[in-house]
Amino acid sequence: MSTPIFAQSFYKIASPNGQIALQVIQAPDRSIKYQVTLNNKEVIALSGVGISLKKPQAELRKFQILQIDSTVHSSSWKPVWGEVKEIQNQYKELSFQLKENAILLKLIFRVFNDGIAFRYFFPEQENFKHFIVDNEWSTFNMSGDHTAFWIPGDYDSNEYTYQKTKISEIDATTAASKEKDIAVTSLIGKNYVQTPLMMKSAEGVYINLHEAALINYPAMQLKVSGTEFTSTLVPDAVGNKAYLQTPFNTPWRTVIISNKAEQILSSKTILNLNEPSKIQDSTWIKPQKFMGIWWEMQIGKANWSLAGGKHGANTENVKKYIDFASKHGFQGVLVEGWNKGWEDWLGNWKEEVFDFVSPYPDYEIDSLTKYAKSKGLKLIMHHETAGSVTNYERRMDSAFQYMVSKEMDLVKTGFVGKIIPRGEHHDSQWMVNHYNRVAEKAASLKVMVDSHESVHPTGLHRTYPNWMAAEAARGSEFNNAPSLGINPEHSTILPFTRLMGGPMDYSPGLFHMSLNQFDSLRTTKVRSTLAKQLALYVTIYSPIQMAADLPENYEKYLDAFQFIKEVPVDWDDSKVLLAEPGEFVTIARKEKGKETWFIGSITSSIARNMSFDLDFLDNDKIYEATLYMDAETADFEKNPEAYLIEKRLVTAKSKMNFRLQRGGGCAVILKKVN
Amino acid sequence: MSTPIFAQSFYKIASPNGQIALQVIQAPDRSIKYQVTLNNKEVIALSGVGISLKKPQAELRKFQILQIDSTVHSSSWKPVWGEVKEIQNQYKELSFQLKENAILLKLIFRVFNDGIAFRYFFPEQENFKHFIVDNEWSTFNMSGDHTAFWIPGDYDSNEYTYQKTKISEIDATTAASKEKDIAVTSLIGKNYVQTPLMMKSAEGVYINLHEAALINYPAMQLKVSGTEFTSTLVPDAVGNKAYLQTPFNTPWRTVIISNKAEQILSSKTILNLNEPSKIQDSTWIKPQKFMGIWWEMQIGKANWSLAGGKHGANTENVKKYIDFASKHGFQGVLVEGWNKGWEDWLGNWKEEVFDFVSPYPDYEIDSLTKYAKSKGLKLIMHHETAGSVTNYERRMDSAFQYMVSKEMDLVKTGFVGKIIPRGEHHDSQWMVNHYNRVAEKAASLKVMVDSHESVHPTGLHRTYPNWMAAEAARGSEFNNAPSLGINPEHSTILPFTRLMGGPMDYSPGLFHMSLNQFDSLRTTKVRSTLAKQLALYVTIYSPIQMAADLPENYEKYLDAFQFIKEVPVDWDDSKVLLAEPGEFVTIARKEKGKETWFIGSITSSIARNMSFDLDFLDNDKIYEATLYMDAETADFEKNPEAYLIEKRLVTAKSKMNFRLQRGGGCAVILKKVN
Repeated sequence: MSTPIFAQSFYKIASPNGQIALQVIQAPDRSIKYQVTLNNKEVIALSGVGISLKKPQAELRKFQILQIDSTVHSSSWKPVWGEVKEIQNQYKELSFQLKENAILLKLIFRVFNDGIAFRYFFPEQENFKHFIVDNEWSTFNMSGDHTAFWIPGDYDSNEYTYQKTKISEIDATTAASKEKDIAVTSLIGKNYVQTPLMMKSAEGVYINLHEAALINYPAMQLKVSGTEFTSTLVPDAVGNKAYLQTPFNTPWRTVIISNKAEQILSSKTILNLNEPSKIQDSTWIKPQKFMGIWWEMQIGKANWSLAGGKHGANTENVKKYIDFASKHGFQGVLVEGWNKGWEDWLGNWKEEVFDFVSPYPDYEIDSLTKYAKSKGLKLIMHHETAGSVTNYERRMDSAFQYMVSKEMDLVKTGFVGKIIPRGEHHDSQWMVNHYNRVAEKAASLKVMVDSHESVHPTGLHRTYPNWMAAEAARGSEFNNAPSLGINPEHSTILPFTRLMGGPMDYSPGLFHMSLNQFDSLRTTKVRSTLAKQLALYVTIYSPIQMAADLPENYEKYLDAFQFIKEVPVDWDDSKVLLAEPGEFVTIARKEKGKETWFIGSITSSIARNMSFDLDFLDNDKIYEATLYMDAETADFEKNPEAYLIEKRLVTAKSKMNFRLQRGGGCAVILKKVN
Repeated sequence: MSTPIFAQSFYKIASPNGQIALQVIQAPDRSIKYQVTLNNKEVIALSGVGISLKKPQAELRKFQILQIDSTVHSSSWKPVWGEVKEIQNQYKELSFQLKENAILLKLIFRVFNDGIAFRYFFPEQENFKHFIVDNEWSTFNMSGDHTAFWIPGDYDSNEYTYQKTKISEIDATTAASKEKDIAVTSLIGKNYVQTPLMMKSAEGVYINLHEAALINYPAMQLKVSGTEFTSTLVPDAVGNKAYLQTPFNTPWRTVIISNKAEQILSSKTILNLNEPSKIQDSTWIKPQKFMGIWWEMQIGKANWSLAGGKHGANTENVKKYIDFASKHGFQGVLVEGWNKGWEDWLGNWKEEVFDFVSPYPDYEIDSLTKYAKSKGLKLIMHHETAGSVTNYERRMDSAFQYMVSKEMDLVKTGFVGKIIPRGEHHDSQWMVNHYNRVAEKAASLKVMVDSHESVHPTGLHRTYPNWMAAEAARGSEFNNAPSLGINPEHSTILPFTRLMGGPMDYSPGLFHMSLNQFDSLRTTKVRSTLAKQLALYVTIYSPIQMAADLPENYEKYLDAFQFIKEVPVDWDDSKVLLAEPGEFVTIARKEKGKETWFIGSITSSIARNMSFDLDFLDNDKIYEATLYMDAETADFEKNPEAYLIEKRLVTAKSKMNFRLQRGGGCAVILKKVN
């Protein structure tokens, strides 16, 4: 439908299910504003759009509307891997062809059943080809002073502890001042937060702000003023935001809305806003579980470095991991600290740190590659860049050729350190392009990527399904961080925030919660019960999952470890059963190509009884439920490792009940018995 | 010799020939100053030394002297190629072990027969390993208000026209304001100039300030205050100068001194201050002459780009060059504009421009490679980065593999454009490291390098003899620049400035001086006589030399072209016969492994008679001298192409006389006839 321009200045479009409505108005001053309602109640009050350019200098904040188009879309697609086997994509689109300062652009809105999104598009045109973005003025004007789950706005780190406050109480500076364990931070200021930003209104409406398809553009963060959020873009070394060339699409700005928290977690809108996979043959992409030479460095048993006599990545130790991982059916062993350079890698903004092809002499990579192969698994490569990305990029060809020659097909990348090119940030356009380049380079060599310390994901795993997961948030390693550690609420907030953008390599599976095992001075504790660590494999979705703890710690609890052995990393279906940010999350997932269901249920520091129907099970079938539960005496502070394993027979008509202790969880396997 | 510390504060050392003396004093405030005399007359008045660090924050400008050592050195070495077949290296060294702010460093002076040099050395030590340089406080306090030959201080360009003024009259801002044709400039300020800086005192003492062995450090430029120059270092994107790690040597700060201008040009001190060649087998490094698809783009006959229908690098045209170059004995043909990307390469600070492996469809690289081989020469690769060095670095492996697979062994690199990493400069530490990385990468693949728009050379061609030449100054292409062009003085100043650091790929050999040949609107002219263009092959030393003009222009003057065919690019000996910056330069060179001498003689816009002895010739031998001279009517403005060729018989006892017309020159071949 192509609408000629009348004197009207009011355009409306509703979601396919009619619940969400978008109104766009042009004000008398020619600015364009949008408003969003859920069931006729305002969720986003009139909010602005616009972009300022530095070169050519131009304010694109008031517009002449040349044409308005609307379309309806309905399709479905099958992800290479994922939470469900098929994804529906239904939306209505309303797009405005605009002109200002002789520059043509398009403002495109899409309205989904669970939210809205918009982006700016600059088509090819005469006399406007290259441009530099100074700022973007997308605003999100909340209809009230909602409860927000946020982390401080920061150009270099998303590893903060989540805060839960009213919007009006956001104080990023104070929150950040409590963080002592993040390697590199560049706090923006008191009134800045990051996305995904989760909110809940007094009326019980859940609202999530984020972005989708972050390509060739800096990450969006948000400035809060009153109850309005305004986009702010991460700058480069000279203060510019993005160097662009027509035709160009900005990332989508997304608002996921529901009066059910569970539906926020079920949303596929961000994925739907990304382009289809660029990888033709994806048979080599394999979701997998792995173990790693990693946690023992975190807790002081071993070092990344050869110096000090406790080098973790020595041949004998790696063999031990291979043996254990192989015996228990894992597909890989990650080895950190395998390569030269760790003696002097951090904190000096040093260009030449690692070369990615030089193993330490006590790490016999060829014999270990053979050994792993003989045991049916693969070594997993680790490329820690130390933030020196220029160094990594110039060595990337040889680094990837090296790992491929060692028969590795999964690389964990790391960006711990101030970025080089100096003045760039982890979340600036240049780095966003870098992460995407790594995904493309890896894809060209049939290599899977697990990126740590990278920019917040925005659903690009649809386009690059070899980019299996990212950390890009406070991951399990912070259980070892003395100042704040990881609180029990964190894992109940992650699905509503960080995970909205994509899978997270959180590294769950810790079984030994006192971290003074190898270093008696260490007083930090894992603030989780053991059963919760199991449940995280279901609640934190990722196609690659680590069993993070040491083989010797698993040996002590092999019956509980059985859950980690059995839990899949790829699913045909997922049901978010009960969820509330900061409180609890319960998700059931059905194993890819199988009839078995797995449930993960976690709680905050509050103990609670969980109860839900099993009506997603097949009718007329009996299932044996194996529950890996908190023991009655379990408590994340006092008795974290107390668990019990219970078996029950259930059907689709059963109600499942169990108790989550403080900081606890429950993991369930449901197997058909008839 | 190791001297214990007495109460003395006065240390003196003289050059091996006794003419130059260095005195170092420690002032009561613990600062250290040096003074230099030539034949007991002060050349450098008391001048300071020091470095400020940003991390750890420390001023290293006053010192405790821990120990003083002096050594004497005498050796000789043979360059892989050069102006002479063997180079003497004689100096006395005086070094001070210093301490300040608990940091140990060494200040090392060397006194040569033609100048002095000093550097700072930071040894390995406890508690001081990584450091960031804020500034360097090396000063050069001139004993008078000398005449200076200078270009404006600039972080990104050394392509300025030279200025000749008193030191007190230096005004870089005004000088720079006249330049309209330099792609990217970052002028520092009114009182800043670049090195090599050439000066002449009222008493006729010639003084050249520069640096040697610029490795892992930004270029030094100079701030002038009164008649004192102070080092200023090119900053990176965040204002830091250098990220360093012990042990570290700064580049040498060099002062070449003589009361004979000719001796300045003969100095090998900068070369001697560089490390010996890192290339074990250098048999593959071949000085050579080449032609190129280049000047025709400069003058509007052709385009680099495929768009517009005048693509220079098309198969047929390249064949024409190969035919001509082969017929006349050249070793290579440079092809610019061979690869995709030129449609949109400049001015937009664009990251992805060229990929260095994608020829235009009308450039049949494989058939041309074969064709060139059948004609006994090679194609020369062109890597224009457009300043996007991150893009180049990540593609460098494939770019070099590509050119090697096409049997090319010489690459011309280009850096026209604002540098990416954004905020870095052509002359900042990161870029200095880049140029050196290119030299090393090329060496590893037996590739020779000719770098354009790179930092001023500092004698590194001793260490990397595959780094044949650089442009790094206003080169012949500026003959086509409408605003200032190249004045006749320029080529008489270059040997005293730019060439002090190393060979220059100037691209001489223009035979057609009116540049409206293919574009009638072009009023720019080459401000040189044809004979001077020939003489430049001798006065501008380089182991690679282009015959820059078009085959059709050479066809018209094939008798003059004979000189370009015969002039060598490698020499057993060189004699600087007559030289005065801004006025004239006359140099005789003896062909490598042969008995033939070549003379180049050039003048400024002033016509003059040149007269000199030929006593460098073998005694008792008769030589046939072929003079390629300005015709009597020749004049760079009115009649630039008028030349005559004259033959004379001469001996070592002869005096050579000829007249150089305005903007003219004379090129001579001296062949033994008995």
